[in-house]
Amino acid sequence: MDVADGGGYMSGVRVAGIGLTHFGQHPERPSRDLFGEAGLAALDDAAIEREDVEALMYGNFMGEISDHQGHMGPLVAEAVGLDVPATRFESACASSATAVREAVMNIRSGEQDVVLVGGAERMTNISTPDATEALALAADDLYEVSAGMTFPGAYALMARAYFEQYGGSREDLAHIAVKNHYNALENEYAQYRREISTEDVLDAPPVAEPLGLYDACPLTDGASAAVLVSEEYAEANGLDASVAITGTGQGGDKIALQDREFLARTPAARKAATEAYDDAGIAAEDVDVVEVHDCFTIAEVMATEALGLYEPGEGIAAAREEETTREGPHPVNLSGGLKAKGHPVGATGTNQIAALTRLLRGDHPHSDAIADSPTAVAHNAGGTAASTAIHVLEEAQS
Amino acid sequence: MDVADGGGYMSGVRVAGIGLTHFGQHPERPSRDLFGEAGLAALDDAAIEREDVEALMYGNFMGEISDHQGHMGPLVAEAVGLDVPATRFESACASSATAVREAVMNIRSGEQDVVLVGGAERMTNISTPDATEALALAADDLYEVSAGMTFPGAYALMARAYFEQYGGSREDLAHIAVKNHYNALENEYAQYRREISTEDVLDAPPVAEPLGLYDACPLTDGASAAVLVSEEYAEANGLDASVAITGTGQGGDKIALQDREFLARTPAARKAATEAYDDAGIAAEDVDVVEVHDCFTIAEVMATEALGLYEPGEGIAAAREEETTREGPHPVNLSGGLKAKGHPVGATGTNQIAALTRLLRGDHPHSDAIADSPTAVAHNAGGTAASTAIHVLEEAQS
Repeated sequence: MDVADGGGYMSGVRVAGIGLTHFGQHPERPSRDLFGEAGLAALDDAAIEREDVEALMYGNFMGEISDHQGHMGPLVAEAVGLDVPATRFESACASSATAVREAVMNIRSGEQDVVLVGGAERMTNISTPDATEALALAADDLYEVSAGMTFPGAYALMARAYFEQYGGSREDLAHIAVKNHYNALENEYAQYRREISTEDVLDAPPVAEPLGLYDACPLTDGASAAVLVSEEYAEANGLDASVAITGTGQGGDKIALQDREFLARTPAARKAATEAYDDAGIAAEDVDVVEVHDCFTIAEVMATEALGLYEPGEGIAAAREEETTREGPHPVNLSGGLKAKGHPVGATGTNQIAALTRLLRGDHPHSDAIADSPTAVAHNAGGTAASTAIHVLEEAQS
Repeated sequence: MDVADGGGYMSGVRVAGIGLTHFGQHPERPSRDLFGEAGLAALDDAAIEREDVEALMYGNFMGEISDHQGHMGPLVAEAVGLDVPATRFESACASSATAVREAVMNIRSGEQDVVLVGGAERMTNISTPDATEALALAADDLYEVSAGMTFPGAYALMARAYFEQYGGSREDLAHIAVKNHYNALENEYAQYRREISTEDVLDAPPVAEPLGLYDACPLTDGASAAVLVSEEYAEANGLDASVAITGTGQGGDKIALQDREFLARTPAARKAATEAYDDAGIAAEDVDVVEVHDCFTIAEVMATEALGLYEPGEGIAAAREEETTREGPHPVNLSGGLKAKGHPVGATGTNQIAALTRLLRGDHPHSDAIADSPTAVAHNAGGTAASTAIHVLEEAQS
């Protein structure tokens, strides 16, 4: 039953507060410690006491490897000082967006009124080859990883398929990296706050042809959190919770690229977007601003197409013609995206929610760049988008 | 908001079908393959087509280590042939019970009508020392594991604390192992189907004093699944779904034993039981039969106390006096429990649901041993019970 089909639900969902650590290199801090900081900041931002939180939903991907730690739900609950049911979600790089989705559903159902949701990842305490191998846990071990596949290689294949089918070039993709670095300049939480040029991108060492170092997001340590509450709770407690999560969608796909019909399309994201838009009662044309999962530049192109901002094959021209800059018709990744803001994988989904919440509340450096009361969409993808969760955020109707 | 406080919910939840693999040593089978078998069996048992499933919620704990595989949601969806949002839950040994809990909430809210839930684990393809180290990912790496803690050691400490506070002996605990082996004799899915004697238990080599080899559950490969549906869906589609999940509860605790007030008590389980009983509108006195998380014999004692079947300190006498055998007033682990049926950790939570469903439906070898229309409870614990999820199953009111 789809809520948009008249199922209805008991309560709307509001973002009462968000919290972030700095994204960057913090190899000395276990992810529990990173999440403690973000979680407490979110509670503080929401003006909610620990005692009022009813559940914790936590996204983390590679803690078994980098922290030598599983079973992180109760561990990070303790870091925030919470005595609540705490569950860890693992959907590779979409881990915290799937946690957000379950929190939204639980609040809608009336089972919970106040949920702390978030994620963290420590990645730079292990070597880059080890981190690359850990990230490959999100690919198909039997059919991809055992044959030497890594994520730069997988996305390079997707880029090649895209170029082959639709045209496009490394120069076109470079615009995305340049834009995202520019957007991150004023983001105080971002890993990289420096401008880069198209030449920098093209001159960077290759990672997996046609992708170079600047086509790839970095390894990042960081955490993000959000306090989600029911509309009724926000109103009854006089919370300043002006942002609503009005749509949620999740889609799946075969993990192994070899099992897919066409490498340069992400049907899981398309399905998730369709569900999320239906859920929110919007159409793709209504979307004003998006945070998408640009783990590689080509991923941003495919994301804008899956979200329906551009037709298949037209996203590359949109990047080339700078339609997705903050001045363009479809601003993408005003936060700096994974490319410049950084990508602590388990934290990225909630970080997108946090960035869009700041935009909607007007306390983001780029809030002025967008229309009043925008419709905002967060797109968080796991692996080569075999898991994708999408959320719609809008100004709450009060 | 608690549903028992008048929140209410849109739909009741029914178990439409269950599926299991044999539990035992299947080191050649990746967990995706194990889950494929269990998931398809559950769909078959439910007489539900793949196309009717709306989501997959999957529990797995140590796949990163034993399968070198994360991001298992879409992978196991593919193994069952499903094209649905698929999410992996990781709460150590309580992974699949937390998946069940979210499935229950999503169905109650009306967001989904048909959810495949389950879990799998491959454990015997790695050495016992490596598996012991992998299992220790569920303990606190910074404060326990780095100091040499393993789970046999942790539960041995809990047993010592119990004996110190309340009395009790290795002989008392041996009754539990003997009982659970006896109960498994007729369970066609069980890892061990052979009787053992009290002497066998007492003569077994020590694992961590006072616990011996037969106080511990084995390492096991296996998978379990259940199809959960809304009451409305079951009725509209004429499904044979006579078992209802009427209560869900989850509790958390500090992971590290050193941070707890008293080692021989599991407050997370107590909180989860209180929530689940309130949710189902029952009291501890109403409980007729339970499947509990007897990863070690002492854990079964603490579970029966947390569930309110016995007062703190009285569970050991109940074991000694054989009150928890199938003829006793409080039958515990008629399936054989983790001890004899086996404990593929990610699969255990859903396996408990499957075992109790069979009991309630009357197609379990021990269905005759219990009262008609029993109230049944499943208790699934992660780590030293820092995560515990509890569910109440009853005959559906139709």
